[in-house]
Amino acid sequence: MGEGIKVAIIGSGNWGSAVAKLIANNIASNRAFDPTVKMWVYEEQVNNQPLSKLINEKHENVKYLPGIRLPDNVLACPCIKEVSREADVFVFVVPHEFVQPVVSQIAKVEERKKKAIGVSLSKGALFGEKKIELISASISEALGMRVSALMGANIANDVAKDLLSEGTLGYEKKDDLYKLIPMFNCSTYRVTPVQNVGIPEICGVLKNVVAVGCGLADGKSCGVNAGVAIMRNGFIEMIKFCDKFVKETGDEKRVSRVFLESSGFADLVVSCTSGRNYKFSKMAVEEGKTLEEIEKSDKMGGQKLQGYSTSKDLYKFLERKEKLEKFPLLKSICEAAAGKEGAIEAMFDAVTPEYKKTSEKYSSAAS
Amino acid sequence: MGEGIKVAIIGSGNWGSAVAKLIANNIASNRAFDPTVKMWVYEEQVNNQPLSKLINEKHENVKYLPGIRLPDNVLACPCIKEVSREADVFVFVVPHEFVQPVVSQIAKVEERKKKAIGVSLSKGALFGEKKIELISASISEALGMRVSALMGANIANDVAKDLLSEGTLGYEKKDDLYKLIPMFNCSTYRVTPVQNVGIPEICGVLKNVVAVGCGLADGKSCGVNAGVAIMRNGFIEMIKFCDKFVKETGDEKRVSRVFLESSGFADLVVSCTSGRNYKFSKMAVEEGKTLEEIEKSDKMGGQKLQGYSTSKDLYKFLERKEKLEKFPLLKSICEAAAGKEGAIEAMFDAVTPEYKKTSEKYSSAAS
Repeated sequence: MGEGIKVAIIGSGNWGSAVAKLIANNIASNRAFDPTVKMWVYEEQVNNQPLSKLINEKHENVKYLPGIRLPDNVLACPCIKEVSREADVFVFVVPHEFVQPVVSQIAKVEERKKKAIGVSLSKGALFGEKKIELISASISEALGMRVSALMGANIANDVAKDLLSEGTLGYEKKDDLYKLIPMFNCSTYRVTPVQNVGIPEICGVLKNVVAVGCGLADGKSCGVNAGVAIMRNGFIEMIKFCDKFVKETGDEKRVSRVFLESSGFADLVVSCTSGRNYKFSKMAVEEGKTLEEIEKSDKMGGQKLQGYSTSKDLYKFLERKEKLEKFPLLKSICEAAAGKEGAIEAMFDAVTPEYKKTSEKYSSAAS
Repeated sequence: MGEGIKVAIIGSGNWGSAVAKLIANNIASNRAFDPTVKMWVYEEQVNNQPLSKLINEKHENVKYLPGIRLPDNVLACPCIKEVSREADVFVFVVPHEFVQPVVSQIAKVEERKKKAIGVSLSKGALFGEKKIELISASISEALGMRVSALMGANIANDVAKDLLSEGTLGYEKKDDLYKLIPMFNCSTYRVTPVQNVGIPEICGVLKNVVAVGCGLADGKSCGVNAGVAIMRNGFIEMIKFCDKFVKETGDEKRVSRVFLESSGFADLVVSCTSGRNYKFSKMAVEEGKTLEEIEKSDKMGGQKLQGYSTSKDLYKFLERKEKLEKFPLLKSICEAAAGKEGAIEAMFDAVTPEYKKTSEKYSSAAS
């Protein structure tokens, strides 16, 4: 006891709590692991009590995952030092805007284990001046550890209810799978490992922008055919984007299969048909509001629309790279998200944009 | 006049009438074509009048596409000989069970043009003793002409309303595109030609089976993650099926892209989220009925559930080939469609079936 692999979960929101349940159940009787899963909680007062204390007493995250019993071997802890000190595997599952501040606190913990590894479940990316930095890579750099990424079509509450789900684990080094697979993979949460961290992460970011596009299009009552055409052309541009800007590992055939994993195909479909970015973007058009207005309205309860903020970063990035014209659909979705006049029409025009050339090429029936 | 390419549409149902409108508009002012588009109508009495007469008087298919004005250059005609005699391009758009009888009538028309070509819009396939015969191939054989296939995520009413749609044109010989592209491709219906007839056609058949699976799963309240997992794993098995049983043309990279065209990705997504096969399969589980009972009930108004009949043919085909175990999800969907006990659970078990091996492979963290 106490000698097994120690898991630290950094984050305890809706997804973090669901994942804590999953991991704690999976490793409870695996002798390779220390059975106690420490979960770092950003302390706040709930009903005049500290949230971490409530979680440990009730074995439930009453605020972010109410109604789900957490296993007894989940230990909520508000002290980042305490959680990080002895951890062998870090599971990062905070919203992407909190990754940097939290990681910089962990970096200060001197007693950290040198051989610790990490896995990021946070969706997002930093669109830098010259290149895109993955969240996994930014954590890796700050803490000096290898960081994998677990992505997929994962509605947290369904995972928490043990309903069947799939996930994609993008890894760099196979060795890490001997720790990570036993933590996540089980009959209700089925993990496919792929030796490529970048594509699952970037798909998890870009799909939110495509979902905004689908929402805006449906808000215009574009019809089923046009809606799925936006989704499909968005998928094609996502693949093109990864080809251009994401470092690949593995052979080409395997890489192209990565797009058909849960983190690609499935996450995109769910986001574009029932996700928040889709729903609120549709609502914006129907109510004649901009996405900015919708985000500030009561309806979102202070939450952010990730596809909207990503669309701003993505646009600037493509502009700097002088590649906006290579991604006509993503470009017009970003412009439509920013409220530019005529941009929704431009979105539709970016569907199968080759159609004009096709007509020109095969027009000579007259001859 | 009268010297241009003559187009004959074989079929005048919902999709046939929508396509008649599309083609008639596209070629009306194209001097390469004879402006009159003849549309063969299976004659029936509507309000005590022949349907073909009503269509020509009202310029509307009052029974199958009410509310949509057909262009004046669409000429409905109940005589298959009259329609076929001088046609240069045949557009086959009858339900797949009527393809054979209609084609055998056309075969008897001796004055047919020898250089005529065809394009099939009918979804279906004949699962033969040894191989699958595509509808396009069966027409081709019966009439001695090259037959392309136009497939895609096409809700007929939306196409008829000129809402943006995409289509995939699977062709064998590039020459034919000089006739077919001008007929279909335009700003509201954007066609991507691919030099592969089999994959678009077979995807158009198998997606109905996957949609049945998604409906049955959702009927069990499986949750969003599991529903999209069925769709994704179904897509993977569709690709595998085509790899095994469909003759490919073109290079591998192009072939794999064909699955991402409208006839693959988009048609699958629409069918699995809002199509008839999805809806009625979901209803069957919710009401505790078999698909056979649902099909016979009033709710379907005598229409057939194509995914259900395909599931029977597909199962027998895979059984004869001794390949059922290679397609665990399609197999269990077919069994669930047939009402076999425990088959819906087996469907869920066929999602990422490698997960057990993955666990075994990476279990040695203990060591």
